[in-house]
Amino acid sequence: MLTLVGIGVGGARSMGAGAREAIASARAVYMETFTSPVPAGDVEEVRRAAEEGGAAFRAVPRWAVEDGGEILRAAASGDVALVCYGDPYVATTHIELRARAAAAGTPTRSVHGASALTSVVGECGLHQYKVGRTATVTRAEASTPYGVLRENVERGCHTVLLLEYDEDAGAFMAPREALAALLAVEGERRELALTRETFAVIASRVGTAGQAIAAGSVDHLMGLDAGEPPHSIVVPGALHFTEADALRALARCEGEPRSNSETARREAHRMLARYVPMVGAAMREARERGADERVLDCARDYVADAEEFLRRGREGQAILCIGYADGLVDALRIGAGLEREDGAPDRG
Amino acid sequence: MLTLVGIGVGGARSMGAGAREAIASARAVYMETFTSPVPAGDVEEVRRAAEEGGAAFRAVPRWAVEDGGEILRAAASGDVALVCYGDPYVATTHIELRARAAAAGTPTRSVHGASALTSVVGECGLHQYKVGRTATVTRAEASTPYGVLRENVERGCHTVLLLEYDEDAGAFMAPREALAALLAVEGERRELALTRETFAVIASRVGTAGQAIAAGSVDHLMGLDAGEPPHSIVVPGALHFTEADALRALARCEGEPRSNSETARREAHRMLARYVPMVGAAMREARERGADERVLDCARDYVADAEEFLRRGREGQAILCIGYADGLVDALRIGAGLEREDGAPDRG
Repeated sequence: MLTLVGIGVGGARSMGAGAREAIASARAVYMETFTSPVPAGDVEEVRRAAEEGGAAFRAVPRWAVEDGGEILRAAASGDVALVCYGDPYVATTHIELRARAAAAGTPTRSVHGASALTSVVGECGLHQYKVGRTATVTRAEASTPYGVLRENVERGCHTVLLLEYDEDAGAFMAPREALAALLAVEGERRELALTRETFAVIASRVGTAGQAIAAGSVDHLMGLDAGEPPHSIVVPGALHFTEADALRALARCEGEPRSNSETARREAHRMLARYVPMVGAAMREARERGADERVLDCARDYVADAEEFLRRGREGQAILCIGYADGLVDALRIGAGLEREDGAPDRG
Repeated sequence: MLTLVGIGVGGARSMGAGAREAIASARAVYMETFTSPVPAGDVEEVRRAAEEGGAAFRAVPRWAVEDGGEILRAAASGDVALVCYGDPYVATTHIELRARAAAAGTPTRSVHGASALTSVVGECGLHQYKVGRTATVTRAEASTPYGVLRENVERGCHTVLLLEYDEDAGAFMAPREALAALLAVEGERRELALTRETFAVIASRVGTAGQAIAAGSVDHLMGLDAGEPPHSIVVPGALHFTEADALRALARCEGEPRSNSETARREAHRMLARYVPMVGAAMREARERGADERVLDCARDYVADAEEFLRRGREGQAILCIGYADGLVDALRIGAGLEREDGAPDRG
């Protein structure tokens, strides 16, 4: 039997009877500390619980879980516990290890723990059902988390960003490093997902006595030393007033909490804001020139449709209609031998 | 001091030292059971822990937490614990109560518990970082969760759907009821977010001895009696092969696990699949008719741009370009006195 035990964000003290029994009754207890920094005291407490129960205890590095050979062999013939920080299955390596055990016919079970993903959101006072996809910022990769952040913030969703932790190098990414990496992507892509003015939150050491929640502009947060890990960054999307109240009450907050989703407006809104006036001006100019009224009437109808689709949240259809209206009017310009000027969509 | 204590998904047995101390040292312990069904044995265990510590214990209904007057008054002058299933802050009522206490100057703290949101995903063997926004299906409201599901599945994200629980009526929504409600929305909106063929998972009583994970087509799942609550439904987006392996190993799985994100193709893909051939046919017809070559060349370039933008994931820009090309060609048709036929975008 392989039991995956999450000790939660509160450390070994937050282990309940289920976790302690799984550890005490195991023949071998493995503990991994590569998915998140774990205080030495917590490792010692798990070691003590294991040894009191007569189990062999071993702290294991990443490769031992990824390879999994020793753990799976031990679990095939006796009770084995793999102990982790938070909830066991936030790390995909643990899911894969469990699936391999189950596929080989070894019984598996879980003792769930409080995950940073839910705990962090709660400690910031944000509504869980507004949280979008999560991403991890690493030194090698800020472009993927930037894309996740953009999709979330455009939809009014909050984003929890986890930060790289490299146990072998003893290195964790500081929040200000992660923010700088995201700003660098913003500089290239300019999609307004994260700017120096974005309101964000740094949640540090959540669930422990040293917990700290700092909120404010990215500019402000980059000036802070967030101290010891683990840290997460939360970027709110649209803030409900009760969320703003909660942030004010629970966080060390520079300035007033504010929504970011108005800035990072959805693409359809940005496009219509740009093209509706341009198509309107081109239509007036064409009408004065005596261009084909049938085409102009049709274009006028599709501009109105684009705006109506946008109001109804049918964004793709809104973009299609404004593109179509733009094409109708520009065909008249091209036919009259005029330049298309700025009115045509950007080329690839 | 107000301490919010989450007992996790494993019930009162999963309470650790932090939770037990918060309960034992409180003057008053309130326990709410309206956010999720809690077994009577768990309520009794918390009551015992409270009374052993000399605290007054009270099970409280929803209004007592929403109103909050009694709890906040007690917490202003002594130690009070509010005990909940899962993690305390998945319920927005608890965040608001805490924020009100903090704003009134009452110290607050949390003992986090394992939430169903993370536990369910792990027990299904799915990758946490691919989980999109969560929604709750209720008898009154399946349209919002349908929209959340559509946005997630289009992006390849998994969706965790929580199901209505009405403690006062003693009623929970059965998974098959929730699936039927979502199918009814599908029938109206036809956005392919959830059909009878969609591959989905029902996770029941996660974290307890009676846990069951059933997977298969919606059609298959609607034929099952999922038994006692709590239940959640998980609709996978794009499945990585390791996730499919894990589902096969961990769930009672009817048929092979399969991705849903190919069916619910993103709007831009659907639009280009429809309009690129139509615009191409209209261009050929116009060229044969001797229409203005300058306009046709321009339309051809924009069709190519639309396809290139789609390949690069710039979906809004792809839709704009195909709409523009369509408009260019249709202006020629209108100018020639022809009907626009099926080639024009749908009207609002």
